[in-house]
Amino acid sequence: MRAVRFASFGDPAKVLQVEDLPLTAPGPGQVLLRMLVRPINPSDLFTIRGQYGRLPRLPATPGMEGAGRIESLGPGVRGFAVGQLVVPLGVGGTWQEYLVANASALIPMPEGLSERDAAMLVVNPTSAWLLLHEVLRVAPGAWLIQNAANSAVGRFIIRLARRSGVHTINIVRRPNLRDELLAEGADVVLYENDPDLLDQIARTVGAHGVGYALDSVAGASGSRLVQTLRPGGQMVVFGAISRQPLTIDPSALIFRNISLHGWWLAQWFQTASPTHIADLMATLQPLVADGTLRAPIAAEYNLEEVQQAVAAAEQSERNGKILLVG
Amino acid sequence: MRAVRFASFGDPAKVLQVEDLPLTAPGPGQVLLRMLVRPINPSDLFTIRGQYGRLPRLPATPGMEGAGRIESLGPGVRGFAVGQLVVPLGVGGTWQEYLVANASALIPMPEGLSERDAAMLVVNPTSAWLLLHEVLRVAPGAWLIQNAANSAVGRFIIRLARRSGVHTINIVRRPNLRDELLAEGADVVLYENDPDLLDQIARTVGAHGVGYALDSVAGASGSRLVQTLRPGGQMVVFGAISRQPLTIDPSALIFRNISLHGWWLAQWFQTASPTHIADLMATLQPLVADGTLRAPIAAEYNLEEVQQAVAAAEQSERNGKILLVG
Repeated sequence: MRAVRFASFGDPAKVLQVEDLPLTAPGPGQVLLRMLVRPINPSDLFTIRGQYGRLPRLPATPGMEGAGRIESLGPGVRGFAVGQLVVPLGVGGTWQEYLVANASALIPMPEGLSERDAAMLVVNPTSAWLLLHEVLRVAPGAWLIQNAANSAVGRFIIRLARRSGVHTINIVRRPNLRDELLAEGADVVLYENDPDLLDQIARTVGAHGVGYALDSVAGASGSRLVQTLRPGGQMVVFGAISRQPLTIDPSALIFRNISLHGWWLAQWFQTASPTHIADLMATLQPLVADGTLRAPIAAEYNLEEVQQAVAAAEQSERNGKILLVG
Repeated sequence: MRAVRFASFGDPAKVLQVEDLPLTAPGPGQVLLRMLVRPINPSDLFTIRGQYGRLPRLPATPGMEGAGRIESLGPGVRGFAVGQLVVPLGVGGTWQEYLVANASALIPMPEGLSERDAAMLVVNPTSAWLLLHEVLRVAPGAWLIQNAANSAVGRFIIRLARRSGVHTINIVRRPNLRDELLAEGADVVLYENDPDLLDQIARTVGAHGVGYALDSVAGASGSRLVQTLRPGGQMVVFGAISRQPLTIDPSALIFRNISLHGWWLAQWFQTASPTHIADLMATLQPLVADGTLRAPIAAEYNLEEVQQAVAAAEQSERNGKILLVG
């Protein structure tokens, strides 16, 4: 079978190659999956660069997310059928043709959800929902600010916030995104490099203040979000695409009683109960199916084209997810 | 009456002077206090420099803390007696001979508490108690790390932690403080500039990890505390004596699920209920009286000597509080 492999950490466009690996049979309690669609997420690229919170032993196959159909069942597996569409959770190595996974790690996808929607359910829709409704628990009528608002999670946050009456201020780098994000349901779209940014935010929210911030950029962008928060405000840092540290004025923390929290989806999956996870998937599936939590797809590549695919995924100008198929 | 005054924000040793001001009579619901003892706190010095969260209109009299005896009661004041020892809360301007304050802002001191102990009850003992037991809620057996461990709050944290079975790692700048802080009840005393600091901390706590950090320095020192925290760890920033920003690695926040909280005592007093405040003072008074929450006094100065007093208070080498008396 074809598998994307890397033997050293580094630039994804350089260290990845496609190899032929032998197919292994599923052991007791395991299934063999024919993987079909895998989104390229920032966390995959950070892992390949060796800059992620949990790193594989090398050589390894990348890929944390993806959907596949069950090819065969190992001894003793019940409740699953050959041909069924599933997503393996926390298994890793989705960027190959076939994957052996424990049946206990599979989330069954409902009929009616496409292979592409299923492949993108676990990371981005889950993150957006949890950040808004379980981590920050933003109340209707409150103001939330986020950077990288054009990312998949950013757009999902906009739509989920609009759906539950939360107001959003959305920071982007490119001015041409404004109308598109307003059409998604954004209340306000502002530009990262606008020297007047903090004043514009203050005028927008008035006495209400900004109660909540979501930072997936870190560096100067994330540091600036802290300055926009009202007393008692909270910021969750869940990404660091700038790869730069946060520089935090301690006076802002102290005198405005501000909190910063780090949050990692993988950690959430490790500690959440199976019923909590199942309930959340049930909540999300109709929202993916009706398009609320469906990301635009910028391009699709075959496994063999993985180097072009990761190069495309690292383009900041792209609009939508890059998928690996086949 | 004599009053310390400043007409512009700046170096305390330069902008402060002693003036003669007319005495005003207490209005309805007010009392006139003869102020007796005032500790010089870092927050006073930051205020005089114009670097605090709430600044007075100038010219102003500094001083957030201090004890006085009631000189006379305004119309309608009940429950207080001439000669009674009290501490005015959140009134400001304690660095003068007499102070008019609302009776509702007074905390009565119990008989048996000295004027000096009363003068130092509200800021440091209160901060130490709240940080340990209400903000961080550190459980017995857990490890807590703090910088500026030789400050008054730092020593109180050491003693309160020992009293409730919490282990402390105490970071100081001067090697000669080690034995003194161990005698206070510190488990471990380490040096800010030791290149081996992080390894020493890791060896000390082993698999337990450091669950809690208290930062009153910010800058490189506070930033380093974040690196010592185990997954799920929390840091409270309640001071910034380095006047430098915190530089936070977002990966540490995200992958170790770490939280940073700003905390300001003045804000706590503004939002706590009167019964909560009264209960806390009742808890603290015996701990001050028995010496657990009593700070060493480095030197005392008369109001007229305020410039020498603030110069002494800004010496990093002093050991104990500087008091203004008379």
